[in-house]
Amino acid sequence: MLTTSLDQLDQRLKTINSFSHNGLGQNRLVYTPSWIAGQKQLINWGLSIGLAPTVDDYGTVYLDVLGTETPNQIIATGSHMDTVAQGGRFDGLYGVIGGLQSIETLLNAFGRPKKTLRLISFSEEEGSRFPTTFSGSKHYARIEETVGLTDKSGISFDTARIRAVSRLEASSVNRSLPSLPLTFTELHIEQGPRLVAKHQQIGLVTSIVGQRRFTVVINGIANHAGTTPMNRRHDALQSGIQLISRLELLAQSLSPDLTVTVGEFNVEPNTSNVIPGKVSFTIDCRHVDSEILNEFETMIHCEAKLMTRPQLSIRVNRWANSQPVQLDQQLLAQNDHLANQLNLSHVSLASGAGHDSQIMSQVTRTTMIFVPSINGISHAPQEATHLTDLKAGVDLLTASLHQQAY
Amino acid sequence: MLTTSLDQLDQRLKTINSFSHNGLGQNRLVYTPSWIAGQKQLINWGLSIGLAPTVDDYGTVYLDVLGTETPNQIIATGSHMDTVAQGGRFDGLYGVIGGLQSIETLLNAFGRPKKTLRLISFSEEEGSRFPTTFSGSKHYARIEETVGLTDKSGISFDTARIRAVSRLEASSVNRSLPSLPLTFTELHIEQGPRLVAKHQQIGLVTSIVGQRRFTVVINGIANHAGTTPMNRRHDALQSGIQLISRLELLAQSLSPDLTVTVGEFNVEPNTSNVIPGKVSFTIDCRHVDSEILNEFETMIHCEAKLMTRPQLSIRVNRWANSQPVQLDQQLLAQNDHLANQLNLSHVSLASGAGHDSQIMSQVTRTTMIFVPSINGISHAPQEATHLTDLKAGVDLLTASLHQQAY
Repeated sequence: MLTTSLDQLDQRLKTINSFSHNGLGQNRLVYTPSWIAGQKQLINWGLSIGLAPTVDDYGTVYLDVLGTETPNQIIATGSHMDTVAQGGRFDGLYGVIGGLQSIETLLNAFGRPKKTLRLISFSEEEGSRFPTTFSGSKHYARIEETVGLTDKSGISFDTARIRAVSRLEASSVNRSLPSLPLTFTELHIEQGPRLVAKHQQIGLVTSIVGQRRFTVVINGIANHAGTTPMNRRHDALQSGIQLISRLELLAQSLSPDLTVTVGEFNVEPNTSNVIPGKVSFTIDCRHVDSEILNEFETMIHCEAKLMTRPQLSIRVNRWANSQPVQLDQQLLAQNDHLANQLNLSHVSLASGAGHDSQIMSQVTRTTMIFVPSINGISHAPQEATHLTDLKAGVDLLTASLHQQAY
Repeated sequence: MLTTSLDQLDQRLKTINSFSHNGLGQNRLVYTPSWIAGQKQLINWGLSIGLAPTVDDYGTVYLDVLGTETPNQIIATGSHMDTVAQGGRFDGLYGVIGGLQSIETLLNAFGRPKKTLRLISFSEEEGSRFPTTFSGSKHYARIEETVGLTDKSGISFDTARIRAVSRLEASSVNRSLPSLPLTFTELHIEQGPRLVAKHQQIGLVTSIVGQRRFTVVINGIANHAGTTPMNRRHDALQSGIQLISRLELLAQSLSPDLTVTVGEFNVEPNTSNVIPGKVSFTIDCRHVDSEILNEFETMIHCEAKLMTRPQLSIRVNRWANSQPVQLDQQLLAQNDHLANQLNLSHVSLASGAGHDSQIMSQVTRTTMIFVPSINGISHAPQEATHLTDLKAGVDLLTASLHQQAY
């Protein structure tokens, strides 16, 4: 069994995480200085072990070792460099550094592969700086270009992108959009509690949930908190609360696996002695079955309609809709077999989070390997995974890349 | 029947409201230029009809006509000059200008009164610039001095106060803190919908509700909206919603007159794809019976305790507590009698809003006269009262001051 150096894995994660120390947790938002430093460091590590770096127009970094027999057949692995604001140390970065470790281990043990091995560090997946997600993998997969967006401080996506990419250019770095791979394997933390709950080291991902996001805006009438009798109010906050409570119950009855989250809730005028005249809130709902999502979406509209009154309007707007995705069954079966050989406890499961694999699966055979998240926490500074589990994931990836590329 | 000039009343209100045109609605915050212009204009109107102006250290303006028989016995009327931000044209100002109209009408009809008549324009009641309310009437009533406060831009209360008061000084203006009156009658808009709903022109105020305000802080655990199963969440927002729903039901069962308002609601991190880790919200509750308020306060604590779990803490903090106040029954009975004589439809009711009368009633016999608010709207630019109702209120005040001072 080929095993990765736990020390080196740990050190490399720490090095890149050390670039992002502005405040709480990791803040490696796309095209910011800490993100540039991260991609640069990765290129240097790649160069140091003989990988050929390429950067595309979106700042995604590709590190290739050319295959000896069929160099045009590419076996790819990787994940994304960016984090959410106040994010954790592993979301995205683990799949990038883990992939680097696997390829280095294989090169040290076996020399160059028959097929080309490629590590990919996608520029952006989280959507935490610009109102878009997966812009890196969408660009690579030729699915969608990102245009006309600005961040909160008014900087355009293109301005930030062009400036950041120019910082990654060097004589040792190719500038192009590489061809698509034969397969893509993404190593990632689970970001949920199921592997820990089931005492499993590895999760093999069957599918990625579909996801829809809505904004609900309720307009009532702002009024004096003392002089307006309870039965004469058009309180937007109380209506919002009723609607949310009702939708929670309906979601439970629809499917226990349907996740529904009201993550954002804003009130106007938001003053203790004024009855709220307006609230707006988001609904994020996810399920592997788009029929369930359709049904829930209908429920949102019906309940909103039922609550509408002359003095109280409710508007529902869907602004994100990604379809559920099935990942490759054959690659999963191979990884299942390898995990047995490596004596790693494992289970198959659906991913509740979106991943670059969601995009890659539309253009190539794609699989994902999960490792456990302590307490199921992610997108938060407390995000953590035991080092032994981090190592187990990399070792399975190494075995998988070996099987595919050698 | 002595009636006021509707034209002059309307013109005077318009004149002072025209000083405050910076943005939406009225913004006559204490000690700002539009507030200074308002108090100055009032002094000039007072001088023009022979009233003697006094200004105290807080900028409250007193306009006196000395009594011919017992000048030390003072019959006072008035309200406050300041508004909330984006406030209406009548809250406070109507009681000031209405009082001026009444006194002018009486002087024109009967000459000087036996007792001294005093119009008071309190400096500040709303608490919209500095974190204090009723600072004008509290100073006059010798109940409490305002110290150590600053506004949002860091200007101290004392700096703003001293600068503004100096602008009101003139050789024709006394500078002192006048003695307290025998009675205080405050004319005010209702700021609620009850008079309109009951088709009444006049409200005679029996009492002012007690008021308590709380902040509730719920700490759960922020987590990923996609990967955290519904039954493993510690969602601060959902807990907040449950608590608020529960308290609404309990409040209804306790008393239909108990008003409960959640006016402010803040979420962290307030992002659509993150389960809220923290929410904080305010509860404003009011009732004329402090026993009901005690019971509701106990309920808040009990319900919060019931919902507390190892991963979900709930903290309740009371930061405002004003006792219910009974206004003078004899003055109310007199006004009731006068309203009958004047053929004005009227009803007795409690005030859900705080008023300077709340402070004045602690040091002198105090009563309030309400006129209807169209649609019950107040603390908003849409605040309005029909001119005929404005006139009816002034006419009743005139009759009341006549009865008391002549």
